[in-house]
Amino acid sequence: MESPNQTLTAIEGIKVGHATDSTAQTGCTVILCPAGATAGVDVRGAAPGTRETDAIRSGRLVQKAHGVLLTGGSAFGLDAAGGVVEYLEAQNVGFPAGPVRVPIVPAAVIFDLGVGDAKVRPDREMGYQACLNATDEPVAMGAVGAGTGATVGKAPSVASSPGGVGSACIRLDSGLIVAAIVVVNALGNVVHPERGEIVAGGKENGSFVDITERLLDADIVHGTNTTIGVVATNATLISAEVNRVAEMAHDGMARAIRPAHTMFDGDTLFALATGAYTGSSVNTVGILAAEVVAGAIVSAVTA
Amino acid sequence: MESPNQTLTAIEGIKVGHATDSTAQTGCTVILCPAGATAGVDVRGAAPGTRETDAIRSGRLVQKAHGVLLTGGSAFGLDAAGGVVEYLEAQNVGFPAGPVRVPIVPAAVIFDLGVGDAKVRPDREMGYQACLNATDEPVAMGAVGAGTGATVGKAPSVASSPGGVGSACIRLDSGLIVAAIVVVNALGNVVHPERGEIVAGGKENGSFVDITERLLDADIVHGTNTTIGVVATNATLISAEVNRVAEMAHDGMARAIRPAHTMFDGDTLFALATGAYTGSSVNTVGILAAEVVAGAIVSAVTA
Repeated sequence: MESPNQTLTAIEGIKVGHATDSTAQTGCTVILCPAGATAGVDVRGAAPGTRETDAIRSGRLVQKAHGVLLTGGSAFGLDAAGGVVEYLEAQNVGFPAGPVRVPIVPAAVIFDLGVGDAKVRPDREMGYQACLNATDEPVAMGAVGAGTGATVGKAPSVASSPGGVGSACIRLDSGLIVAAIVVVNALGNVVHPERGEIVAGGKENGSFVDITERLLDADIVHGTNTTIGVVATNATLISAEVNRVAEMAHDGMARAIRPAHTMFDGDTLFALATGAYTGSSVNTVGILAAEVVAGAIVSAVTA
Repeated sequence: MESPNQTLTAIEGIKVGHATDSTAQTGCTVILCPAGATAGVDVRGAAPGTRETDAIRSGRLVQKAHGVLLTGGSAFGLDAAGGVVEYLEAQNVGFPAGPVRVPIVPAAVIFDLGVGDAKVRPDREMGYQACLNATDEPVAMGAVGAGTGATVGKAPSVASSPGGVGSACIRLDSGLIVAAIVVVNALGNVVHPERGEIVAGGKENGSFVDITERLLDADIVHGTNTTIGVVATNATLISAEVNRVAEMAHDGMARAIRPAHTMFDGDTLFALATGAYTGSSVNTVGILAAEVVAGAIVSAVTA
């Protein structure tokens, strides 16, 4: 018997596509939900790079997104969202507005310009290519897509470890599914969310070092980092609830990355609810969201 | 004697450039502050389209913007910000991050796809062109740049009036300057901020109609609208204060547009503080910000 999909694409209606430039060490990852999913976001890092986040906050007119772009290239990489918009428009997907449909594609970036070629960034073409690559197969993890140039565990005189893309999924017998995809490029180490041991992170002489301790010694750390991701569920939630799920999902980051949410991270999580399943509460979805985010973070560095 | 500049470019260090496509009825307007200005934003409409707003909110690492893009083309027009980023990077302007400088260019859009050619939207090239056109001369107003396809006063069976770009400036004897540039594409009418009479808006049989009354009758209005702009000052303000100025500036919109901030407007105002003048309070700047926003809105439709 085929083992079930344990990644974000376990949720019907969601496809994931990577575009990877292994030479320049950058890339982007698109999450497509062309039928529209009720969307929310919580930006909790201090150094974010984002696009179309304001459109999906609670109380706004546009409550559904048609895709989310996670990308390398720092603020430059936001251009890749244009390729996703182009792809979706060609499929006649989008928010109906006058003579056109406007695809709603929120996006967030990681800073990967310190790895590989700093002058090569995901662009419109790469965003379009990620859409062409999108599939409902289990999500490829590790150094692919937006995770290609990702690293974790950074402090002066410390060697960071590879970060990457991770995904995880929880299915309840009721039929509720909550899943996450995360691009881990954190300043901190990745730790096991229950046991606390370091799974990946900064090393000195071959041994992991405690990044929190190093920061307390050094205080100021240069460079920008960031963990970004998407939590998706088949639950039926309204806009305010999906935004709340995005907030609760950050607890998974708190548990699996130490430290997280620093002044040098742009940590941003989106949430999507497709609405195929009824009967779950925002509380249940939010608690599971934190679990799958933590699981996805660990997967990103162990894949 | 030459009359003083009564527009946004009265503030030293700020240039404004328009790129206009009169045939397709769209365009974009860039506000450049390459030396960096402490930046803030307040998104108060329900249908915004934005980029890089999260980076400049209070409490974040990046406190300075190097430019702001106001553009037509709805969410598609956000691509034009890439051209501004490209232009600034070529000038070595940006937030220092590892091997590069990342230009911080927040952006907001208006919906002008119902006017002219809906398939032509401001793109990367147009954003770059607006930068090439930027100057510290008094800002050109009316149907130029991001205001090319702008209209005001919309309701069923009502003929809207042209909107456009407006700018206004207040100088105190102390040396404090507060100025605004606004792209007016409102659902509501533009009214005189003190006397309340309609200056521009929806007409029926040649006479202005009260859009608020029409909305109360019809309730649901299709289409998206939006007024966006930038308030700039030579005051020295910290990030939290500049964000506060952006909030207070929306009062100018409340006074000069009726109704404003609806579910069908994406009303967004940015604020920039260059820091050349010391001694003013955030309160003074915020009060004047509302005044110049109201003045700029009226200028947009009377220019």
